[in-house]
This record gives sequence, C-alpha cells and structure tokens, in this order.
Amino acid sequence: MKAKHFTFAEPLNELSLESGERLGPITLAYETYGALNDKKSNAVLVLHALSGDAHAAGLGSDNGLAGWWDNLIGPGKGIDTDKYFVICSNVIGGCRGSTGPSSINPKTGSPYALNFPFVTIGDMVKAQVRLIDHLGIEKLLAVVGGSMGGMQALQWMTSYPERIRSAIPIATALKHSPQQIAFNEVGRQAVVADPSWNNGNYYQSKVPANGLAVARMIGHITYMSDESMTTKFGRRIKTEKDPTKFSADFEVEGYLHHKGDNFVKRFDANSYLYITKATDYFNLLKGHSLDSVFKGLTAKVLVVAFRSDWLYPTYQSKEIVKACKLSGVDASYCELSSTYGHDAFLLEIEQESQLISHFLEAAANGNGVNRE
Amino acid sequence: MKAKHFTFAEPLNELSLESGERLGPITLAYETYGALNDKKSNAVLVLHALSGDAHAAGLGSDNGLAGWWDNLIGPGKGIDTDKYFVICSNVIGGCRGSTGPSSINPKTGSPYALNFPFVTIGDMVKAQVRLIDHLGIEKLLAVVGGSMGGMQALQWMTSYPERIRSAIPIATALKHSPQQIAFNEVGRQAVVADPSWNNGNYYQSKVPANGLAVARMIGHITYMSDESMTTKFGRRIKTEKDPTKFSADFEVEGYLHHKGDNFVKRFDANSYLYITKATDYFNLLKGHSLDSVFKGLTAKVLVVAFRSDWLYPTYQSKEIVKACKLSGVDASYCELSSTYGHDAFLLEIEQESQLISHFLEAAANGNGVNRE
Repeated sequence: MKAKHFTFAEPLNELSLESGERLGPITLAYETYGALNDKKSNAVLVLHALSGDAHAAGLGSDNGLAGWWDNLIGPGKGIDTDKYFVICSNVIGGCRGSTGPSSINPKTGSPYALNFPFVTIGDMVKAQVRLIDHLGIEKLLAVVGGSMGGMQALQWMTSYPERIRSAIPIATALKHSPQQIAFNEVGRQAVVADPSWNNGNYYQSKVPANGLAVARMIGHITYMSDESMTTKFGRRIKTEKDPTKFSADFEVEGYLHHKGDNFVKRFDANSYLYITKATDYFNLLKGHSLDSVFKGLTAKVLVVAFRSDWLYPTYQSKEIVKACKLSGVDASYCELSSTYGHDAFLLEIEQESQLISHFLEAAANGNGVNRE
Repeated sequence: MKAKHFTFAEPLNELSLESGERLGPITLAYETYGALNDKKSNAVLVLHALSGDAHAAGLGSDNGLAGWWDNLIGPGKGIDTDKYFVICSNVIGGCRGSTGPSSINPKTGSPYALNFPFVTIGDMVKAQVRLIDHLGIEKLLAVVGGSMGGMQALQWMTSYPERIRSAIPIATALKHSPQQIAFNEVGRQAVVADPSWNNGNYYQSKVPANGLAVARMIGHITYMSDESMTTKFGRRIKTEKDPTKFSADFEVEGYLHHKGDNFVKRFDANSYLYITKATDYFNLLKGHSLDSVFKGLTAKVLVVAFRSDWLYPTYQSKEIVKACKLSGVDASYCELSSTYGHDAFLLEIEQESQLISHFLEAAANGNGVNRE
C-alpha cells in the first residue's frame, strides 16, 4: 500500500492553530483501503496513536511491513474493507510524511525544528477535516482510534459532531492525569537531556538516539502490564549476555533495549516532544462539565477499555461514557479482560474485531449504508 | 547526630562477596540512637532503601536535616529510643560514607568506579553482621526496613535467623517482578546514556547529572500513586513558567525536575547502578520453594504493605506471609489503606508507629527485654 500525500491547496493552504499561530503549507500523508461508495457514506477514519502513522493496513510498498492495525483492517476483517472505505492519515506534528518539526520550513529552507509551532489534538483533527473535504466526504460513518487515536475520536465528537455518524474511542481519556503527564515528561526529559538533541537542531548531525531510546523504553513499560511482563519474560536471564557491566542481563531488559533502538530508526525526536505535549494539553473538560461536553451529539458511541490497562485506566473510559450519558448521547461501554495492558488495543484483535464489526454494521444499517 | 564509621579490622578486613570476589578494606557509616541495655538485648537495626543512608533519625550534625525516618524513630516515637537502641548503617555499594564505587580503591589510589565488584543484598547484610558483632550484640531485637530495606530484613531472616528475635519487612518482595526490573533498567539506561557517565569514570570531571536526574524522575513516578499525584498536583500549570519550549509546564513536571536535581546533589551515579542491580538480582526463591525459604526461623515477623503501592504491589507482601506460614513461622500481615503509593512507608507514620511499637513491645516482652 503506497502512501498518498495531500497538500492543502490555496487559498486554504494554511491552518490557523489553537495557539493562534499559523502553519502552512501543510501536507498530510495518508492511505486508503477499500472503495468509497457512490453516496460516500461508507468512510471510516482510523486515527493513530503516538508512534503510529498512515500505514494502518496492508503491506508497505517500501518495506513490505504490515500496517499497525493490519489484522483489524482488511477484506472480511473487523473493519471490513469489502464494505467500508478506510482512511488513515499521519498527524500533523508527526514525522511519517505529514508536516512536522522535521519538515522544511519554507521561510528558511531548513527543518522547522523548534520553530515548529505547538500543535494540539484539535489542530490534528482540523487538518484531518481538510483531508475529508478533499476526498469529498461530508459525513464519516465512523472515527476509530486507540490511545492518542482515541483522543482524536473524542475531538471529532466535540468539534465536528455533524461530520460523524459514529465514534469508537478506545483505551483513552478526556484528559491526562498527572501520572500520565509525568510519564510523558520523563520521556521528554530523557530526550532533551541528550546533548545531541542540541535544542532541537540535530538534523545535520547526530540524532539524540540515546535519549529517545530511553524515552521509548519508559513508554513500553507503561504499555504492558505487570502480568503480561511476567508471562512474557519472567525473571529469565538473557542467553547471550554482554560481558560489560550494566548491559542487559534479564530478557525484559533486552526487550526494552530492542524496542528503544528500533524506535530511534523510525521516529523523529522533536516529533516525539511535540506530540506528547499535545496529548498532555488535551483536555475536553476545559471550560466544559461532564454533562455539556458532548451536548447535541447524535453520533452513536462505543467506548472500549481494557482491565489491565494501567496507563489509561478503565475509570477514564467510564468517565467518557458518563459524559455521553449525561449529555443524552447513545453510548455503550465495553471493558475487555485482556492481560496485555495498554497494548491490548493493538493486540486483542479477535475481541475488538467482533465489537467493532457489529457496531459498524449497526451504524451503517441505521444509515442505510449496507442496503445501497 | 554525627555519623560514626566502623572499618573492619584485620584479619577480617575483607568481605568475600557472593560473586566470589573479595572487597576490602570496608568502612560502614552508621548512626545509633538511644542506649544499649546491659544485656544488649534491646537493639533494633533499621535498614534503608535505595536512596537512604545511615542518618535515619535526629538532626544531622553537618546540615541540620532530620533523618529519613525521624518521625518514626526517637524518644516516645514508634521506635522508642527511650526503650530501644537503634542502629542504622549505610549499605556497602552506597555513597553516603560506606565503601562503594566512589570510594578510593587502595590498589590504585583512585575511585573504584566500575572496578567495584557487584554486591548483593546478601553482601550488604553480611557487612551489617560485622557491625553488629563490633557493637557486641549477639541477637537483635528486630530488623526493620521498607522497600530495599525490607529486602535486607528478609535476608536477615534467611541468612542469620539465629541473630534476630523479630523482623518487620515493609512494602517489599521476595524477588523483583520483570516490571520492577524494567523500571530500574530504564533508570540505569538513562544514566549510562549520559555521555558524562563515561563508562563510570567521571570523578575527575562532570558527573552524569542529566541522566541521573531522569532516572530519579522515573523513580518518583513509581513511588507515588495515580491518586496521590491527582491530590497533590491535579493538572495545575506552574505559575512561573520557563518561556523556553519543552520546559516544565505542569506542577507535576516541576516537582519531578526538583526531585531529580536534588538527587544529583547527594547521590553517586555509579552507586545508583550497583544498588539497583543488587535489588534486581535479589531472589530469595532461587533454590528455595515458598515452604522452605524461612524454614526453622523462630523470629516473629510483621509484614506491612500499602494498598496503593503499585511498585511493590500487596500480592508480593502476601507472598512473604504465605512463605512464612508455610514454614511455620509466627507471621502477621497488615495492609494499610494509604493513598500515597510506595512512598507510604515513609509517610504513613501514625499507622506505622502504632503497628511497630506494639509489635516491638510484644517481641521485647516475649524476651523479657522490657522487664530488665
């Protein structure tokens, strides 16, 4: 699946951001799967998490790798591309084809680095609306995403309620708790503590690989659960031990090192800083109470959470459901008993597939999509 | 309270370590509070956690600061120094007066750095036994400690059961889970990723302050709970914001920065590496089953855990109790409903004081200590 690119056209080639700053020109990298029907009523927008990208399904044309939700999206799968037209775009601020801090600033001819303006989840979604406009879709059948993708789904529910028929926020929150902010901040500090970060100016030199790897290692601890780590690694010692002191001894350490090193190869450190900040500042309850935040939303909502997810604990998903109910929104809640922790949204495919396929079917039937 | 120093005397001026290496000469920094009775039967050994030291109580003669458990230890307090003779020593491998990687290696005239041998919790306790011998105490009334201090208490229970009348392991475990190892490993990686660490050779130059601060920040997240962070910080923004991008915005971020910076001033990065490794390798169930590990122990045991402690979850304390019960040891379990998380062992003083004072009283009465 080859990524397409959509560059905003004049005169709307800029976005005015929540910060008041303007950003442009803007390019979004996106992929689509399946076919848009004649009424353009079968489009499902899939929203990626922190380290995701537009390549949600199929095999990448460049590297042959399966998309990050490939076992959920495809012909006959949970999000059935025989029925639905699936779209996934890389967020602005990202580094996987969409405009972000590693993109060239047209005013200077060099990468933006820290001259890139702060972006919010609201700004990311605003850019997605332009893409949907460009594709000629007035109303999405559904927006679906986990973690930061779930935040984007929630943002669609509040900012563009008239553009969606349904929404599936998974393993997410109306706002980050101080503990979630704290984990993000330690990750950011690991990056900025790396001298190679050089206040964001490393595009012509060595990237802050050490710092970014540490940040990712912290992340991976929070994505798993005590139980899933025990099942996967126990206290097993690595068979091939590095003889130097303070190298990885335990298998769990080797796993984290591996995940950290891999991340550095595919992710921009400045994007990591900008995107994690966007999630920390996300707060749908700012200026809203639980009973007003989703007022007037007619979309059907399915909230999904996982019992062992301690990064986005189930109480945060229940708060979303409560807000929906208090606002009279048609919302249902499903708590899955996975042991995978936060990663469950990427791994509990069988349960998710059933939930999502039935929900989409009902949403489509309610709107006559499947009868066309 | 001025720290005393005990240097092992010839011919026992070395320790043979679990690794097979020998370390010596060895100095232990220690403090004592209260008076040893004539029968030398009222001694309580207090065992410190990762970042603690010998200064457990009273005001430091150098800086006037209260000891790390000062509100628990003193005249009329939970561990009543009118009744008991309290001893606390800095662990070997540490950096607060006892021999550790920052000490001078007599063979080279320079700090050991990574030439310091690996030490274990067993080695730390072995050194403490020498101190107790030096003080002329045959049998301790009690060993008491939280977290890594609790591991030392458990080690006394298995390695020197004939030297203790009672033990109070608090918020601890028979062995680290992979999640606990993972958090330690990310902290270590933050240190070794700092170029100033220089493979441990930084004593003549800049210390790896950035890396060590990040390591400590991770630690502090795990010491608190989701609830205690919400109570203490919420999502409040710092009033004095640094205008640069990616400085601390939220109060919780400022708190972590502050804790990280403070730690760097008082702690040696190599000690951090050695001591965390010692806790990861600690495993009382290696070569033992639950029903054999405490076999033959006649000491009374009080196990204390805190419901909101997710770093050392209560199931780990229950496992200690189970091991005691299966071995026929007189053990009781108390789970306190604090919201402070792992930090509760330093903060829930009122509840701990009651528990510990009654337990010590009973242990002392059982041995006629208080009737002398």
